[in-house]
Amino acid sequence: MDVVEFRPEPSQYAWTFGGAAPIREIEPGTVLRLWCDDAFGGAIRTVSDLASATLDPRFLNPQTGPFAVRGAEPGDTLVLHIVDLTPARDWGASTLVPFFGGLTGTDRTALLADPLPERTWIYELDRARGTVTFVAHQGEFSLDLPIDPMLGTVGVAPANREVRSSLTPDAFGGNMDTPEMRAGATCYLPVNEPGAIFSVGDGHFRQGEGESCGTAVEGAMDVTLIVDLVKASAARAPLWPRIENDGEILVVGSSRPLEDAWRISQVEMIGWLGELLGLDRLDAYQLLTQVSLTPLANVVDTNYSAVTKVSKTLVPGLRPLDGLHADLRARATSLT
Amino acid sequence: MDVVEFRPEPSQYAWTFGGAAPIREIEPGTVLRLWCDDAFGGAIRTVSDLASATLDPRFLNPQTGPFAVRGAEPGDTLVLHIVDLTPARDWGASTLVPFFGGLTGTDRTALLADPLPERTWIYELDRARGTVTFVAHQGEFSLDLPIDPMLGTVGVAPANREVRSSLTPDAFGGNMDTPEMRAGATCYLPVNEPGAIFSVGDGHFRQGEGESCGTAVEGAMDVTLIVDLVKASAARAPLWPRIENDGEILVVGSSRPLEDAWRISQVEMIGWLGELLGLDRLDAYQLLTQVSLTPLANVVDTNYSAVTKVSKTLVPGLRPLDGLHADLRARATSLT
Amino acid sequence: MDVVEFRPEPSQYAWTFGGAAPIREIEPGTVLRLWCDDAFGGAIRTVSDLASATLDPRFLNPQTGPFAVRGAEPGDTLVLHIVDLTPARDWGASTLVPFFGGLTGTDRTALLADPLPERTWIYELDRARGTVTFVAHQGEFSLDLPIDPMLGTVGVAPANREVRSSLTPDAFGGNMDTPEMRAGATCYLPVNEPGAIFSVGDGHFRQGEGESCGTAVEGAMDVTLIVDLVKASAARAPLWPRIENDGEILVVGSSRPLEDAWRISQVEMIGWLGELLGLDRLDAYQLLTQVSLTPLANVVDTNYSAVTKVSKTLVPGLRPLDGLHADLRARATSLT
Amino acid sequence: MDVVEFRPEPSQYAWTFGGAAPIREIEPGTVLRLWCDDAFGGAIRTVSDLASATLDPRFLNPQTGPFAVRGAEPGDTLVLHIVDLTPARDWGASTLVPFFGGLTGTDRTALLADPLPERTWIYELDRARGTVTFVAHQGEFSLDLPIDPMLGTVGVAPANREVRSSLTPDAFGGNMDTPEMRAGATCYLPVNEPGAIFSVGDGHFRQGEGESCGTAVEGAMDVTLIVDLVKASAARAPLWPRIENDGEILVVGSSRPLEDAWRISQVEMIGWLGELLGLDRLDAYQLLTQVSLTPLANVVDTNYSAVTKVSKTLVPGLRPLDGLHADLRARATSLT
Repeated sequence: MDVVEFRPEPSQYAWTFGGAAPIREIEPGTVLRLWCDDAFGGAIRTVSDLASATLDPRFLNPQTGPFAVRGAEPGDTLVLHIVDLTPARDWGASTLVPFFGGLTGTDRTALLADPLPERTWIYELDRARGTVTFVAHQGEFSLDLPIDPMLGTVGVAPANREVRSSLTPDAFGGNMDTPEMRAGATCYLPVNEPGAIFSVGDGHFRQGEGESCGTAVEGAMDVTLIVDLVKASAARAPLWPRIENDGEILVVGSSRPLEDAWRISQVEMIGWLGELLGLDRLDAYQLLTQVSLTPLANVVDTNYSAVTKVSKTLVPGLRPLDGLHADLRARATSLT
Repeated sequence: MDVVEFRPEPSQYAWTFGGAAPIREIEPGTVLRLWCDDAFGGAIRTVSDLASATLDPRFLNPQTGPFAVRGAEPGDTLVLHIVDLTPARDWGASTLVPFFGGLTGTDRTALLADPLPERTWIYELDRARGTVTFVAHQGEFSLDLPIDPMLGTVGVAPANREVRSSLTPDAFGGNMDTPEMRAGATCYLPVNEPGAIFSVGDGHFRQGEGESCGTAVEGAMDVTLIVDLVKASAARAPLWPRIENDGEILVVGSSRPLEDAWRISQVEMIGWLGELLGLDRLDAYQLLTQVSLTPLANVVDTNYSAVTKVSKTLVPGLRPLDGLHADLRARATSLT
Repeated sequence: MDVVEFRPEPSQYAWTFGGAAPIREIEPGTVLRLWCDDAFGGAIRTVSDLASATLDPRFLNPQTGPFAVRGAEPGDTLVLHIVDLTPARDWGASTLVPFFGGLTGTDRTALLADPLPERTWIYELDRARGTVTFVAHQGEFSLDLPIDPMLGTVGVAPANREVRSSLTPDAFGGNMDTPEMRAGATCYLPVNEPGAIFSVGDGHFRQGEGESCGTAVEGAMDVTLIVDLVKASAARAPLWPRIENDGEILVVGSSRPLEDAWRISQVEMIGWLGELLGLDRLDAYQLLTQVSLTPLANVVDTNYSAVTKVSKTLVPGLRPLDGLHADLRARATSLT
Repeated sequence: MDVVEFRPEPSQYAWTFGGAAPIREIEPGTVLRLWCDDAFGGAIRTVSDLASATLDPRFLNPQTGPFAVRGAEPGDTLVLHIVDLTPARDWGASTLVPFFGGLTGTDRTALLADPLPERTWIYELDRARGTVTFVAHQGEFSLDLPIDPMLGTVGVAPANREVRSSLTPDAFGGNMDTPEMRAGATCYLPVNEPGAIFSVGDGHFRQGEGESCGTAVEGAMDVTLIVDLVKASAARAPLWPRIENDGEILVVGSSRPLEDAWRISQVEMIGWLGELLGLDRLDAYQLLTQVSLTPLANVVDTNYSAVTKVSKTLVPGLRPLDGLHADLRARATSLT
């Protein structure tokens, strides 16, 4: 396997999906070893670094990439297998950004209420124990939490000539902020532009479902990916991002209101179950009703993201793309 | 412990939360052994029993109860510990009801599209193996699924003189349709009216999160509950339904759009974490952001229901009401 | 015409739609001369009467009624023609209620932000000029505004055994808070329970569309109505409240999110246009697209209310129920 | 005044806001005489031209432009005064596009229901009478409707490096689809990129509020605009599109769900009223509550658009930017 390593200089960060020139062109099958800065570009380092004083809203979620995949054409499926995610700094950060988050008025849910007070939390990483530590501002409470590294953003160039901020999740993936995007997962994305033009970033050392306050335990990340491509001739591309891991298949829908994000993920999963199991639409709807898991991803971004997930154990026979995921897992073994 | 057994005649079913005269008055501490009919009143028995021909929308989700709890006053907390849920028939049923469900136009999401075709699935129960069997209408696919019995409806009389259909979930509980309402769970509900006036029903042999098509594997259920009461003088009543099991604490919010159901469950959980851990509001918001699980309950009912859930293992120290749940678990041991 | 006069004592107020015993039974054709207290029960009288100190949330929107209409059966249409609305006090009041209103967090859009500051405005009525006066708290600004008296609540007993707070709008009418409910309007409501069991209240001296802050210029009102009944045998009852005035026909939909309220009003109007003009569903959809007016009613209540309105001038031939509205207008002439 | 005439060749159409090179650079004060193709690029010409067979979703809402305004910098306000809109063809067209529109499932409100049947309506224009004619497909019904020409899209390059489809409305304006964008209106837009980079298109011969079926009476349009610029040093740019006409000031908010579009328009209007009248935020909230009109724009596009509107007659003293609108009206007089 080709191995490409890339650690961007800050001047090389991309801030959008689409609209940025590719950093490299790579072959399908390439292994990427990347470094990703955190969502804040590393600017939040202590509890006294408050968002409004430290952050520029035009420079959030720096992307590593984009990469062009040789031979990728609209209609193909981009396959990104996450081999490894390792924290690249010894601390993560989370902060309250004025008028951002799930439980405050925002630029969209425009209200007259004052913003919440600003506050920043720094989570020290204990690599040996695999934990980060929450330390309360008021009182003496602190708590070690296991890390569960994930990527907030994984996305391709959007369809229809659009260029979207790296803060946005949609059909092209992007800022989905789902904890399911962890090592061992394979992500399937539709190719909209020649070369797919994908990037990753926004590492989280851990995140609850919903990402309520707007920021997870944000941290720089060393990322190992295997990049692959499924041509349109072999399989129809998904309409919305799909994920597969050893135990489950998943779809991520992103829209507002939240029920529409959920509906998207459900309808896409019904189609997927139909393909994999040979069920008609209504039978797949019924089966999904009784087996679906629906962990939310984020309820804070410009679109909200909801996940529909089905267990391979509960529903045997879910083996997309002739077992490509298992093949990628095997390829990954040689890398770690 | 007092034990009260009750199997309602169809003429005794209640169809509302509030507005129905109590069947019995019971003491706090009473064990209830109840039988609950399924959501359809048992009317859907074969795959040729279609909803529009079989069901009367005024007679869905028959309730067993209501029961009055002696001494319960507004401001108190009603405690319902589910000791056991055992399927009371050898089959469950799920059906597509025209203009009802998450992926069709409805009376609220009013559209011009035609209703989906009608179809009914019957799930045979294998008691020995603890499974129900999904059988597809088209093709040969069938699948055994483990049962995971739960109650769709658990509710008290609403506040503010309202009477709500047994199809509605809200702050009084009701038709929340969450799989978390299984045996071993303790449900805490606010008392709004003297006696609390609670009922249960709508047994599901199993259900996915979201209950997409509108109906789970609906089945009659034998239900064993321990009923208890926490006076306002001992603890402030929750604003929204709370659940506790051996591993987690949970809040169920119900509203539309779905993000508001989620917001309700998050804000109530932030308050609860604050009480239990001594955190201020912003620290609790931050901690919740990193540890929250958010399985949806239903995205089909008159309000949608979302769950926020926190693991007691991940966050030690979550011991509501001085360990009442553990005490109820101990009491339950003697009953089974 | 029978004329019934009724001025309730505070002890006679109803606080719900459904669930209250009728004050009187009246014949179809009766003229009602009523007095309605304001939404606050008259408790907000000066700018220093703040909501949180003055109001009890269980006692808002007192209803005058309910009245039973002899012979009304489910499936019939209740017809309420508003002959006259005259302010019954010389001042109206509007106040900011904590966590209530369109531009603040609420019990549903549950947020962590603080409530807005409380503030009350008193609007003095100048009967001769037909104005109320807005007086700003900060600075010297004041402004005379023409009165445009309307009823915030007009509703019948809900379907399906429910009892709803007088703060709720839904298919039964209720707290729709639309400025279209003014003198000269005829309101058509579905009869759900024998006798219809209707009430009115929540007079507004004037209100903008949306009722943003949650309270209009709330004022006690002298109300003159003609009550009529259309039997199911003569016409199918509307599914949602309809209004007719000399120039327009209107439908009010109430739900959340706001697009669903709008969808309801649009679909009901498409059906109505179809009946009146002999159009099929798609032609009516098309015509409505080019002629619809859509003033919002409220974006603050437990359901939001949206209005779809079509001009009789723009679309000739809109003459519901064989000209009943014109007939009521003629009958009204003799009363004023 | 400089006068620039421009009639694009199809190869010169722009399909996005942002991301396209300017066609011309113009001076503030320039008069533009433009021709705009209809939303379908003229492809729907007869009732047998159905959307799915005729339209390519990548080529809708062709834009005339973009134009760069010399000296425009981020923070400035772009001013577009619509002098005249004259239908440029003798027919308009409206069509049902599968899974597009307010009363059908869509790519976002993803459902399992079938799409609505396809149907196209052609509206013949009678220039002398100023009418277009609706002709029903079923039955004999036809109706002349007065034309009320408007522009569906008026937008600048988005902030934050984004490029958005010409189908999207947002803070940059774009596909707002409000009937308020008629001749005589002045539109104020924030400048996000040097040169502002604005375009117009999507002429409608008339449209109801909400644009329910997804397409208005779409027609090519001759457009006369006066372009002006207000520097940041003279006035703070609006956050969201503002409109002024002789009788009213308006704000257009665009988001989902619809209540958020409304909230945006209300909060921006509260700020505007505050500036113009010297009111604090709460007094402006109160005044708006009693005087606001809220005609919806569209409930069909990728964001929904809601309008908040205040009458200059009802509220004297609304004279933004020292009477710039009146000045533009005067300048326009010499052009027609």
